[in-house]
Order: sequence, then structure tokens, then C-alpha cells
Amino acid sequence: MAKQLIEKITSLQNQRIKKAIRLHSSRGRQAQNRIIVFGNREVSRAIESGLQFQEMFFTETLWNSLSSAERDCVSKSDTRLSFVVPEVFEKLAYGSRTSTLIGTADRPETSFDSPCFKLRAQRDLSLVLVLQSIEKPGNLGAILRSADACGVDAVLCADPLTDFFHPNVIRSSTGVVFQMPLISGTTLEIQDWLADQGFCVFTAMLENATSFYDSDLTGKAALVLGNEATGLGENWIDKNYSAVKLPMRGQADSLNVSVTASVMMYEAMRQRS
Amino acid sequence: MAKQLIEKITSLQNQRIKKAIRLHSSRGRQAQNRIIVFGNREVSRAIESGLQFQEMFFTETLWNSLSSAERDCVSKSDTRLSFVVPEVFEKLAYGSRTSTLIGTADRPETSFDSPCFKLRAQRDLSLVLVLQSIEKPGNLGAILRSADACGVDAVLCADPLTDFFHPNVIRSSTGVVFQMPLISGTTLEIQDWLADQGFCVFTAMLENATSFYDSDLTGKAALVLGNEATGLGENWIDKNYSAVKLPMRGQADSLNVSVTASVMMYEAMRQRS
Repeated sequence: MAKQLIEKITSLQNQRIKKAIRLHSSRGRQAQNRIIVFGNREVSRAIESGLQFQEMFFTETLWNSLSSAERDCVSKSDTRLSFVVPEVFEKLAYGSRTSTLIGTADRPETSFDSPCFKLRAQRDLSLVLVLQSIEKPGNLGAILRSADACGVDAVLCADPLTDFFHPNVIRSSTGVVFQMPLISGTTLEIQDWLADQGFCVFTAMLENATSFYDSDLTGKAALVLGNEATGLGENWIDKNYSAVKLPMRGQADSLNVSVTASVMMYEAMRQRS
Repeated sequence: MAKQLIEKITSLQNQRIKKAIRLHSSRGRQAQNRIIVFGNREVSRAIESGLQFQEMFFTETLWNSLSSAERDCVSKSDTRLSFVVPEVFEKLAYGSRTSTLIGTADRPETSFDSPCFKLRAQRDLSLVLVLQSIEKPGNLGAILRSADACGVDAVLCADPLTDFFHPNVIRSSTGVVFQMPLISGTTLEIQDWLADQGFCVFTAMLENATSFYDSDLTGKAALVLGNEATGLGENWIDKNYSAVKLPMRGQADSLNVSVTASVMMYEAMRQRS
């Protein structure tokens, strides 16, 4: 496989490096319709989930530390492999000095029409999470990690306010963002889909809501959570939806959205197991 | 109360301002044995919990927006009140341009010997959380917020690696850090205290652990969680402790510590209600 390592890049002025660094910003990802992934765990999970990397960058130290199985894994298919010097690596890796795998790839599809989601939807989707206008990458990442742990079948983001492939989503999800079926759509699209599929819809509301623990979550269930600052709006109030809330005993009046989502998903898993 | 507003501070060179700004850093807080609190909700919760502010700083806009009840609340007792110009405010408030209450105070006590904790401990302490070497302020803050919601009686931090009064703990706990009985001690001190008090101790472990959902949490229970990176060490393996873990169905092998803590506290609350 070493034959693929045709290049050694020593300059930050290299055009491929400049293009890759631009992928740190949302604007750069949008302009190129590509993403950048760093972290051994994150890159491995992306590969396992079938993501095809276009480029991968290594320091010599990292390359030498890989087992031959790992080298086969990262260098299979058409990925272009390059050695970079530590100064270039550091810029690529968002300032990190710790040597890890870094790769660039086309942005994964996240629409209802993506082949991956259609395939998955043919099987039984029984527990899904809906996030309305989620805003903070760290929250989305933590929620994806919990969704994976709880066996959630898909995460649907209605009018999201963050990029799913923001480096902080990738890192805080520990790469789960590549494995979990993840859909972006308008609120209306997602509400129509939930109705079509016959989900019982549970909306997390602070007012006029019953205790989440009184809900029967053993059927086909969709858990819907709102934006960090504003919660769920009026467009999620519907006679067909059950408004629910976690009981709160203390002085504070709300929880972090990733905590609320995780507690709810775990309760669903508990009831269903 | 307006008589207390004896000062108008326009310069960043003012000695009191310089001292207050130093409280943003851990070193500054340690040197002065004082803390700085910003945010209307955070300052209000601190006052409700009995914290005595030494100084409070306002912009004129903020002061004029307060109701007379709010003015009474912030200006009761010996707090020294000052108007500051927006440039000074921004530096005090960690760069924020949004005008909110800001105050400085002596660091609250967090030892087993603190009068507040002794008073609380005379009542029945029935559900406590123990955090071993917690490191990230944001995690501690989120956990405190959940602990408050779940009616946890105290949070004990064994050999903590973060300052309880780091601005990010205060903010991410939305001020709950001032209301929740919060103890710092060595691991041994805390283990001795748990034994003395007759707690059933549940340690969150990834290996050799039974499902948390099989635990009976209706008695006097202590939930123990480890450091973000390393989890709980061998010093928490003991025949008198029950090693437990949350079931995980997915690809990832661990959860964010604030998620694990929150799911466990909510399950304890569910069983106990």
C-alpha cells in the first residue's frame, strides 16, 4: 500500500492543504461540499460506516505506529494518502499537536432521499428522535452518542441551526455522526413523515405537559425536543401529539437539552427492554 | 438605596476593577479567596442561597431596568454598589456585551466542616452524588443542574480537578452551584463519610458491572462517577460497593459523564417517587 504515499507535503501553501484547512469553517464546507474528519476513533467509525475518504494525511510518526491491518483499512480504495510535516499537521488538525488520522470526504447525504436512509427505512424504524432547530454542535454530538447507546433508529433534525459535520459535532459524537441515520428536513417535512409512518409523537414541553414517566413508550415512538433557548414552538402543539416533561424537583426550571434527550431515550430503552 | 451608589467607575485602571477582573482566572480566585458571579439568574440564585456579595457593578441601563424590589434585593446589607461604563462592564463580564448583574464575594466554603453542610447533614441525606476527579467545568455545571432537578441532597467531589466557582461552572449550572450542598474532599475522606453515614454505594464502571436498572435505589444511595477520560480507578473497587453500568446498545463504548450522571439520577428519582 505504501505506493499510494506518493506525496510528502511540507508547506502550508500547498493548494490541497489550503483547501483542506478551509473545511474547518462552515462556509468552506458549504463551498466545497466536503468535510474534514480528525481523530483515530472518528475516522475509523466513518470508514466502518462506508464513508469514502478522498484524501488522508499522516505524520510519519503516526504512519509508523499503524498496524498493517490499520494501514490496509485506511488505504483501501481510492483514497489519496500523503505524509505531512508536523507544522502542516497541526494546522489541519484544528491546532491539535496530537497526531491522529485526518481525512477529507464528500459531505454525506442527510435528506430523506439519501439511498442510505431509504435502505434503513425499509427495515422497521421503531424509535426515533427529532431535534427542532438544534443550535450547539456539542449538544448535537452528545445527543448522537446517547442515541447510539439507546438503540435509536434515526435522528431527524428539523430546520437545524448547526452543521451536522462541524468538527465539534464529529468530536463530541466520537464519530457516531457517521453511523447514526441522520436526516435534515423542514419541520413540515418531518411532521408529515412522522404521520405517514404512524409514530406516536411525544413533544418535550415545559407547560401543559404530563410526566414523561406516565408515557407508554413501548410502541413506535418519536421523541421531539426543541431549541436550546426557545424550546418547542406552537407548531409542535397538536391534538395528535402528547406533550411531556421530565419531573423537576429543584430550584432550576429546565435542563440542558442533551441531558433531557438522553434521560428520555434511556427511559424509552428501559421500557422497551 | 440609591445612596449606596457612591461611585461611578469609568476606568479599567481602577484598582477594584483590576482586582475583580483577576477573579476570572483560577489563580486570581485562589490568591484573593474570592469569586466573581455574572448573570441575573446566577446572581439571584446566589443571593437566595445566602451568598453575601461584597461588591456589585451595574451599567446605568441595567440599574434603570430593575424593579424597586430587585433593587432592594441586590442592595440590601453591606454590598458596595457601583455604576460602571460599558467598556468596564464588558471586561468584568468576560467579554459579554449583554448587561447583567455582576458581583464579587468571598469564596463559599465547600468542606465537610462548613456550617451550611453541617446544618444540612443533620437532616436526612438520602441520595447523594459523588464525582471523582471531575475535570471540565461545563460537565460539573450540567451535572449540578440535573442533581437539582432530581432532588439530590448533596454533591461530593473527590479530589476535583476543576474549581467549583469557575465562571463556566456558574454559568452552565445556571447558578445552582450556590444552592446545592457541594463538598470537596479527598477520596478517602469521602469514602469514610459514605461508610459512616451508611450509604449503599453504586460505582459507575464499564467492566465487571451489572445493569444499573437492576439496582434497588430506593434506600440511602450514593451514585459515584469517575473522571471524563479515565473513569473510576481501582480505589473504588470494593466488596461493599456495587459496580453498575448503563446498558449500551450501539457502536460507541461510553457516554458523556454528565449524561451518565443525569440518566442515573433520574432513574433514582423514578424509583423513589
